[in-house]
Amino acid sequence: MEFEVITKDAGTQARTGRLTTSHGTVDTPVFMPVGTAGTVKGVTPEEVRDSGAQIILGNTFHLYLRPGSRLIAKLGGLHKFIGWDGPILTDSGGYQVFSLAKLRKITGHGVIFRSPVDGSEHIFTPERVIEIQETLGSDLIVCLDECIPYPSTYEYTKDSTDMTLQWAQRSKKARTSEDAHGLFCVVQGGFYNDLRESCAKQLVDMGFDGYAIGGLSVGETRQMMYTVVEQVAPLLPRDRPRYLMGVGLPEDIIEAVVRGVDMFDCVVPTRHGRRGYLFTRKGHIIIKNSCYKDDESPVETGCDCYTCSKYSRAYLRHLFMSGEILGLRLNTIHNLHYFGNLMKGIGKAIEKGEMLQFREWFYDMRKGGERCS
Amino acid sequence: MEFEVITKDAGTQARTGRLTTSHGTVDTPVFMPVGTAGTVKGVTPEEVRDSGAQIILGNTFHLYLRPGSRLIAKLGGLHKFIGWDGPILTDSGGYQVFSLAKLRKITGHGVIFRSPVDGSEHIFTPERVIEIQETLGSDLIVCLDECIPYPSTYEYTKDSTDMTLQWAQRSKKARTSEDAHGLFCVVQGGFYNDLRESCAKQLVDMGFDGYAIGGLSVGETRQMMYTVVEQVAPLLPRDRPRYLMGVGLPEDIIEAVVRGVDMFDCVVPTRHGRRGYLFTRKGHIIIKNSCYKDDESPVETGCDCYTCSKYSRAYLRHLFMSGEILGLRLNTIHNLHYFGNLMKGIGKAIEKGEMLQFREWFYDMRKGGERCS
Repeated sequence: MEFEVITKDAGTQARTGRLTTSHGTVDTPVFMPVGTAGTVKGVTPEEVRDSGAQIILGNTFHLYLRPGSRLIAKLGGLHKFIGWDGPILTDSGGYQVFSLAKLRKITGHGVIFRSPVDGSEHIFTPERVIEIQETLGSDLIVCLDECIPYPSTYEYTKDSTDMTLQWAQRSKKARTSEDAHGLFCVVQGGFYNDLRESCAKQLVDMGFDGYAIGGLSVGETRQMMYTVVEQVAPLLPRDRPRYLMGVGLPEDIIEAVVRGVDMFDCVVPTRHGRRGYLFTRKGHIIIKNSCYKDDESPVETGCDCYTCSKYSRAYLRHLFMSGEILGLRLNTIHNLHYFGNLMKGIGKAIEKGEMLQFREWFYDMRKGGERCS
Repeated sequence: MEFEVITKDAGTQARTGRLTTSHGTVDTPVFMPVGTAGTVKGVTPEEVRDSGAQIILGNTFHLYLRPGSRLIAKLGGLHKFIGWDGPILTDSGGYQVFSLAKLRKITGHGVIFRSPVDGSEHIFTPERVIEIQETLGSDLIVCLDECIPYPSTYEYTKDSTDMTLQWAQRSKKARTSEDAHGLFCVVQGGFYNDLRESCAKQLVDMGFDGYAIGGLSVGETRQMMYTVVEQVAPLLPRDRPRYLMGVGLPEDIIEAVVRGVDMFDCVVPTRHGRRGYLFTRKGHIIIKNSCYKDDESPVETGCDCYTCSKYSRAYLRHLFMSGEILGLRLNTIHNLHYFGNLMKGIGKAIEKGEMLQFREWFYDMRKGGERCS
């Protein structure tokens, strides 16, 4: 994996860059649609690419449990299996495992958990998680870390962060090839400045291909998230990509880009789409609202996505109310395009040195608002 | 609506024809995918057309209840609303209303029923059903009839058939334009030869643009269905299209074509697809079976559909087992293509005067069978 910063914004920490993998290049800042179980839910790889997405995220946890990483390897690897020939980042599975609550047990060695699919017992160690991701054939892989909730005590956070650091060291040793993929560590430390700083510095000393900021979007306020990003990003190497995991909403992406983040992933465009929550520059639309019943306009006037080029809000509302599969898909297509266009807009703004103006424009557009009477 | 018989088969009653509507022409024999609630479930209009389908069916009952025929008219008609610019046939809604069992009451005037969507009371009369279909802007419309179950008594069947005949007469009077659409009556008469014959003859005397054979696929044996088709088809005008409603499986389509039927509709390719039942020339595949777990081959080798050109059985099985939306869609695309190719094969066979050989080839192919070990 190679990474190169191309341009830096004038008034903020934002930058554009190019990430090169064996499955192609990615322009940063980038948003990665989430392909949880080997599919970005509801859409084909072609539809994902048409939305402007250059890289997708796969969930190690889900793919490991079903259909299994060895089976995927036997079938030619994750790219071939799911029909996506662009870059893939797989997460460490940590977030999902730690979300299992009573179904898992953490030790310094790793995490023992029960499969929610069939109840079978499994263990994720840092080494195993690297092996699984290598088996899948991912382009970008992530070290196992513990993602702790907010609030957590200082003591718990400190112990957990120490463990995450040890796991990062073990993960680095466990990788069998540096050419095949880029390895991302995860900066933890909760909401304690000294722990975040110490974690970031130690990880930078170890040296990784990329640096993820983890443990955010776990219940804290939006301002707290921005504060952590603002604190951590400058501690990371300027020539390495910075990845804010699991984020997020358009405004969160913009605020994080301004603070120096290059990569994002989130289920928001896909999950919100399936629930009938559609993004537009003027805000959002809840498609089931009765005001859209006879609305002949597209979700967003001027949007060039398949959904907007062909269907009315009235039709999308009808599909949603009728529980039709096509509705889930058309909504998802639009939202992915919205995020694709957002990232293009961000990239252009940075190239012009106008990221602050872009942020202002973004918030201004929303003031007009989508009104549902 | 115009219809022209193009070629007749040498050894059977099969024929090819061309049906012309204001939204384009249709080559017969034709299979119409069912777009129940304004969408062929899970796929776009483009995907429907790519499968070889030239016309789709919409359900008057569903569209009338939700989103409502007046709303659809206000939004520019059914074609515009759903984004399908080819021909559309709407059924009379009779089949759905009569399936409501306790929620409906039949009188000579019409059928009173309660909406399964919101419990509201409605009445379908022959006149109302024509009006609704005209409001939707359908190219081919169907008279309200009573679809009775098998078995039904002679007396009940006779009274019901008389009512269907009266309703056909009323439907014909109710239409406001002969240019805008073709009107199909429905031959009923249950499984009593004299009632079928009398019904067919009286409808022919009234004169319709097309003739549907109804009341089949309601619980009788396959052979009984073929017998009715064999009896009724020759009673219908040679220069008018014959439509076997709600049928069916590939073998049923072939047997009915051989007996002189031109048009078919059925939820089989779409519904079976969503349930993981995939059609191939060698029989069918139940995709959830474990033998497909690591099967790298496409659903059907040689099939040129999107699904087969890109994905393995193993991937489709994974999507099915994971409950992924994409699986429903990919399965549906393949099954629609299978039906599209089946109809193309039938058309070519008739043109060559080789429909009997085609039928033989069809059954022979299945003897090889899809084996799941």
